[in-house]
Amino acid sequence: MSLYLGLVHHPIRNKRNELVTTSVTNLDIHDIARSSRTFGVKKYFIVTPLEAQHHLVGRILGHWEGDKSGAYNPDRQDALAIAKIINSVEDAMVEIEAMEGKKPLLVATGANFESWESDAYELGRQMKIDNMPIFLIFGTGWGIHASLLEKADIRLKPLHGASEDGYNHLSVRSAVAIYLDRLTQGPLIPKN
Amino acid sequence: MSLYLGLVHHPIRNKRNELVTTSVTNLDIHDIARSSRTFGVKKYFIVTPLEAQHHLVGRILGHWEGDKSGAYNPDRQDALAIAKIINSVEDAMVEIEAMEGKKPLLVATGANFESWESDAYELGRQMKIDNMPIFLIFGTGWGIHASLLEKADIRLKPLHGASEDGYNHLSVRSAVAIYLDRLTQGPLIPKN
Repeated sequence: MSLYLGLVHHPIRNKRNELVTTSVTNLDIHDIARSSRTFGVKKYFIVTPLEAQHHLVGRILGHWEGDKSGAYNPDRQDALAIAKIINSVEDAMVEIEAMEGKKPLLVATGANFESWESDAYELGRQMKIDNMPIFLIFGTGWGIHASLLEKADIRLKPLHGASEDGYNHLSVRSAVAIYLDRLTQGPLIPKN
Repeated sequence: MSLYLGLVHHPIRNKRNELVTTSVTNLDIHDIARSSRTFGVKKYFIVTPLEAQHHLVGRILGHWEGDKSGAYNPDRQDALAIAKIINSVEDAMVEIEAMEGKKPLLVATGANFESWESDAYELGRQMKIDNMPIFLIFGTGWGIHASLLEKADIRLKPLHGASEDGYNHLSVRSAVAIYLDRLTQGPLIPKN
């Protein structure tokens, strides 16, 4: 399986649909690295063009000489080994292509898509047949900005909740876990 | 659907299999409340016998007069409305029975069970038929202690990862999201 994951901090929408850059959070790095490692993701790209954030994330990932803070918890540190900070989704695509020898399929997730090309169970089924590298991207803030969404090859069907009043506000950490589970562990349902 | 969720901080195992009480974390409260609300959980019990933790959680849940910190983010505050701190799993069972008029099925999750009575897809299918109240419990630390596990009616099959080297260390937040998705949104696969 050649699955790559990106957590996008730019280009992102804010509440007023404006283009913004969000801040990286410590928690997203750790939780998503653990989910990524567990479900066999080859590399987890933390996408931000901000130089200061690259330094911050570098510290968290323990890339700095003498930083042994992860030593007490090897499992957690092991997960962080697949995380990498990168300037843009485009740069990550180039890196994945270099690793895989072919361009990955860019697959976008979002909570508010009104139309989509596939869903996570179906894409998971397809992945196992095609062995195509996939770069699965998640937005922060109010979601991935249109300027990046329009470059995606596939948008996946949003997750739906089961609340009676339509409440549907998963954290990005929870959404990542569910998509990875559906893609890699979902039951193989025959297509109608 | 009558689904209840419990995050257990006592009785818990530590690394050496001893009985301990873990600390409540702010993050578990928020992320799991959002997942619970999204997937239609009726009440999310944060289980700890520690009095000091009851005060702390009360502040986070905004139960204190004059605490308006949730006002800027109504969606998030809305999720916290279903969270409740309680002394024990037994107390939560009593409360659920009072609400539902019958005793709930106590369903335990864990990453290291060697045997189990059902899995999340199958239980989800059953829930939709029986309309039985279910109390789904998750451990913190190194998992739910045997003294509580032995009271469970059903243990669910652990989640399996897809990593080549067997790495399997999801955060409890990610595990909750996946179990709730499988239980409530999983495809209805005919039983063989």
